Amino acid sequence: MAQAPLRIGLIGTGRIGQVHATNIAADPGSELTLVADPFVDGATATAARCGGTATGDPADVFRPGAVDAVIIASPTPTHVDLIAAAVEAGLPVLCEKPIDLDIARVEALRPVVAGAGVPVAIGFNRRFDAHFLAARDRVAAGEIGDLEQLTIVSRDPAAPPAEYVGVSGGIFRDMTIHDLDMARFFLPDIAEVSAVGTVMFDAGAREHGDADTAVTTLRASTGAIVTIVNSRHSAVGYDQRIEAFGGKGMLQVANAPSSLVSFSGAQSVEAKPPYQEFFLERYSQAYASELAEFLKLARGEESASPTFDDGRAALLLADAAQRSADEGARVRVDLT
Amino acid sequence: MAQAPLRIGLIGTGRIGQVHATNIAADPGSELTLVADPFVDGATATAARCGGTATGDPADVFRPGAVDAVIIASPTPTHVDLIAAAVEAGLPVLCEKPIDLDIARVEALRPVVAGAGVPVAIGFNRRFDAHFLAARDRVAAGEIGDLEQLTIVSRDPAAPPAEYVGVSGGIFRDMTIHDLDMARFFLPDIAEVSAVGTVMFDAGAREHGDADTAVTTLRASTGAIVTIVNSRHSAVGYDQRIEAFGGKGMLQVANAPSSLVSFSGAQSVEAKPPYQEFFLERYSQAYASELAEFLKLARGEESASPTFDDGRAALLLADAAQRSADEGARVRVDLT
Amino acid sequence: MAQAPLRIGLIGTGRIGQVHATNIAADPGSELTLVADPFVDGATATAARCGGTATGDPADVFRPGAVDAVIIASPTPTHVDLIAAAVEAGLPVLCEKPIDLDIARVEALRPVVAGAGVPVAIGFNRRFDAHFLAARDRVAAGEIGDLEQLTIVSRDPAAPPAEYVGVSGGIFRDMTIHDLDMARFFLPDIAEVSAVGTVMFDAGAREHGDADTAVTTLRASTGAIVTIVNSRHSAVGYDQRIEAFGGKGMLQVANAPSSLVSFSGAQSVEAKPPYQEFFLERYSQAYASELAEFLKLARGEESASPTFDDGRAALLLADAAQRSADEGARVRVDLT
Amino acid sequence: MAQAPLRIGLIGTGRIGQVHATNIAADPGSELTLVADPFVDGATATAARCGGTATGDPADVFRPGAVDAVIIASPTPTHVDLIAAAVEAGLPVLCEKPIDLDIARVEALRPVVAGAGVPVAIGFNRRFDAHFLAARDRVAAGEIGDLEQLTIVSRDPAAPPAEYVGVSGGIFRDMTIHDLDMARFFLPDIAEVSAVGTVMFDAGAREHGDADTAVTTLRASTGAIVTIVNSRHSAVGYDQRIEAFGGKGMLQVANAPSSLVSFSGAQSVEAKPPYQEFFLERYSQAYASELAEFLKLARGEESASPTFDDGRAALLLADAAQRSADEGARVRVDLT
Repeated sequence: MAQAPLRIGLIGTGRIGQVHATNIAADPGSELTLVADPFVDGATATAARCGGTATGDPADVFRPGAVDAVIIASPTPTHVDLIAAAVEAGLPVLCEKPIDLDIARVEALRPVVAGAGVPVAIGFNRRFDAHFLAARDRVAAGEIGDLEQLTIVSRDPAAPPAEYVGVSGGIFRDMTIHDLDMARFFLPDIAEVSAVGTVMFDAGAREHGDADTAVTTLRASTGAIVTIVNSRHSAVGYDQRIEAFGGKGMLQVANAPSSLVSFSGAQSVEAKPPYQEFFLERYSQAYASELAEFLKLARGEESASPTFDDGRAALLLADAAQRSADEGARVRVDLT
Repeated sequence: MAQAPLRIGLIGTGRIGQVHATNIAADPGSELTLVADPFVDGATATAARCGGTATGDPADVFRPGAVDAVIIASPTPTHVDLIAAAVEAGLPVLCEKPIDLDIARVEALRPVVAGAGVPVAIGFNRRFDAHFLAARDRVAAGEIGDLEQLTIVSRDPAAPPAEYVGVSGGIFRDMTIHDLDMARFFLPDIAEVSAVGTVMFDAGAREHGDADTAVTTLRASTGAIVTIVNSRHSAVGYDQRIEAFGGKGMLQVANAPSSLVSFSGAQSVEAKPPYQEFFLERYSQAYASELAEFLKLARGEESASPTFDDGRAALLLADAAQRSADEGARVRVDLT
Repeated sequence: MAQAPLRIGLIGTGRIGQVHATNIAADPGSELTLVADPFVDGATATAARCGGTATGDPADVFRPGAVDAVIIASPTPTHVDLIAAAVEAGLPVLCEKPIDLDIARVEALRPVVAGAGVPVAIGFNRRFDAHFLAARDRVAAGEIGDLEQLTIVSRDPAAPPAEYVGVSGGIFRDMTIHDLDMARFFLPDIAEVSAVGTVMFDAGAREHGDADTAVTTLRASTGAIVTIVNSRHSAVGYDQRIEAFGGKGMLQVANAPSSLVSFSGAQSVEAKPPYQEFFLERYSQAYASELAEFLKLARGEESASPTFDDGRAALLLADAAQRSADEGARVRVDLT
Repeated sequence: MAQAPLRIGLIGTGRIGQVHATNIAADPGSELTLVADPFVDGATATAARCGGTATGDPADVFRPGAVDAVIIASPTPTHVDLIAAAVEAGLPVLCEKPIDLDIARVEALRPVVAGAGVPVAIGFNRRFDAHFLAARDRVAAGEIGDLEQLTIVSRDPAAPPAEYVGVSGGIFRDMTIHDLDMARFFLPDIAEVSAVGTVMFDAGAREHGDADTAVTTLRASTGAIVTIVNSRHSAVGYDQRIEAFGGKGMLQVANAPSSLVSFSGAQSVEAKPPYQEFFLERYSQAYASELAEFLKLARGEESASPTFDDGRAALLLADAAQRSADEGARVRVDLT
């Protein structure tokens, strides 16, 4: 309450960087102090809108005393070095997923993070969605008995551009990774991964040897089975549903209705599709809560922020899914 | 776009005054310039939060050049004089409903307003709710054929304090009046009113000879029948539904779900009640749209703001409903 | 179980007579023994299908020893005399609603029925619908606290032929009467009636001075308000919903879905309208249960069959509704 | 219409045999002529209820002129020999699934069936469910564009007795086989199978090395992916849902509601679980339609009955699923 706002250095001013900037400005516990982007116009515009000083050089963020905490929303290949820099500077950091597309680089960074004692959070924002969180908490409270099956339907509105597909790391590392983390939110210890991918519609996926449609099956150490149904497009809109099934019943999280109006006629009952546009709209509350939780982490308070090891685990699972899809074999994983 | 923001003088800083202040601060087309409230601490706090200068004297708002437009959110007995002052000062005005509880005072003001050529809008915010508006527009577009029956369910979460009931003008003038205006939003020309009121639970209503439960039936000049089902309490939460029935089908507006999570077990399927807390939450978008539409009106642009005559019509209908409930007879009305 | 089946005499082989014949044949506790219809071909065909002997003369049913109980499904004007004959013959009788369109004839019959000690049931089949019954029982069990508002939406798929409208007794005695009985199923003691009727679409109603659209408002002696929304047509299909609202919550009975399939596309989510064709389909279970309950009544067991006085009360309410609609005044009723 | 009813010989009078007997008695196109069961009391009771002569010897069914068609509802190990006998006798046959648990015996029978020219239908009753059929037809009509993902949730109310599990052939051959056929109803040409099984709750499954929880993933030759989520129990009741997803939208088949009544209170909205008890109730219409379609097949008319090769394909897929679950590898199949 009486605490001074945390001074945040934001690196990267793309779509998600904008979301973080807006939320920092709105959260009384934080203020936007430095905005860094080599595309300096983006930094300048963001600072004008949400406060702070703009710079084209991310290294400014790590200068002694410049900021209290760092949020990394720059392109994936920069994440590992920027996390390392933040850790070295002793600055708590929230980094967008994935940590990297190359698990070797993540493993190399791991002991550095573990040894430094500096909090590192990874931006798995869906953990903060009030509906998924409520479902998870109710499962954890035993409402459905033992969790036996978790079914995640996760479909994007439209496939990304072909050039993005080419550098995305593939559907499992780029898109499924969010669902793999959600699986671990309910069942942290995943032991086995199977996956099937196929190209049904997207020329970009075909061109780059990627899939646009995929189903991933996980077995947790408890025996519970997770099924993730992914598609890179959805005529109906952004489709994000979860069903947790247990011995005593099930909990379902539906899509949000986009209108309260329905029409009933002789032939049909019609309503607007129950979907919001895309992740910035569907998860706007989740991004704000993610920031609030990171502020706690940065202050040394108890926090629900996903950790560096959560980021690593999701990438290990995505790698296993890709290998299973490629080779046709179930893949055992060890997340410890 | 390039227009200067309209300078708004706000009179009254209660619940709804706060909503207007927040929306004025957030709307680039307006700025809060003067905040007037005889309870000057309220004015000061609001100005500190949303901008402008605080004053304890509403007359300051009407000083030449002080503001460009006025919003009246003060207690009902002050409305008529403040509207008159605004009109005299040539200032466009948005006044909360009702104009007054005494139709005689409204009729006396009517020619003043009509002759002045100054825009006067009344705060029937529900007309701006995106869902009701969509339903009305679809009815107007002929989607259900002729509108034959309009059924409005409107229940507040909890009865107001007994002292408020005593000065409220009664359930029809205080609560039903919103639904009467909604009826006119779909069917402007109402010809007859019947009403039944009863006391089922509220000691305050009993004490003041008021009802806590009421059903009002209207007949439009088209022959269509409107039914308004009101209750001063609702265990389930704020209940605001509309069903428009016509020869080709019907349009329904449901309550908003408060959660996307549902539980299915051996005995039942459960979800959170599909209701938001109360009008400030349910109609937050509507208040913002109401302001935007008033800014257009104040600028002389085409506007959907309800007029002084809409405010008068709603009060005439409320009076008729009260009389019908008291006397047990259907009451003819002439809204012209 | 070991009881011999009750031998039933059925008078009238129209639509509802057919339903009773089918149910009698299917119920092990009854057998169709005599089928009487002046249109003797109807009687013959029904007997061939469901058992028993056909006759063109209803008087055969009342011959000593011919049958154990009587079901009257002949035209309304015959009901009073046939009930009187059954009572005189000492035969338990189930008569379709209404008892008569003329309350004077009903009042004249009333002491005859009361004095005879012969069970007379009236065919208000909706009381036996499992869903309405469950809602009523849950209200009676206090699940929603005191019942404060009961809202009944009741719309037929299509208006009857003009010639039927002419002899129907009007929408209140012909159609609303079912809903008036349903109101009394929840709130037996109705004290006041208001009604509004209008012609919106049906030439037959206009020709005969009847209404095709009506809203009836009742006040029970408890203070609770009942609202009945009627239409003689519904593009969506047979529309039969109830909402019981009380201090602790509400119970709603929805229409039955006609399909489990729904389509979600870019513009809309579509399903089949949640309605069944008409009363024979919607209330098929109710007719079977009605018969079962009448068999109990005829055997002298405890039974939930609506009584002669329930039939009289519904007609008194329908008369009051018609008068209120005609005269524009609330009408007090005394059902004792 | 004018055709004589087909004389049916029914072998087996367990649960499903009873269903067939009832439907034969109700269908004017068929009559129950012979009922065979080594447990002759079952045969006698069934014949008493539904017609025909009882016998303890199934061979009686195949005597020249005894019947026109055969329905086999006896235990699985008898199916192959009884189909062979029917084919040899030239009698059209409807046999319950599975043909056998041993694919070798099915392959041995295949040329016999193929060469005989006698219609052999397999009892995949779910193909005849009006809702699944409508969804399939709408997919086939192109309503959702290319079918990209088919997701089947199929959960039984409760695990079978341990002794049954021991002889069931395992969850894939016993339970999933219905869903595998449903997958082929939408996508006949399945090319690959992956499966994961686990024991979460059932001691019988653990004892017999079977699974009680399984997810099976299929890839069709079109590239489309089918996901089948199975559980041997469901606290909520029999759970049978399908979601067909394509480029233009999706079609969903929901569970049937068991009540039209819902309660809304301060804490929750509650309804009965939307599930019917078990397959005899959920698929009662499907069994009747299955019989009707078999009667057409037996008469040489065009028919939608699943064929012997459909029965073989489902078993091949179940075998592949079992192998994939056991070995952890994706299994390619060739259903031609």
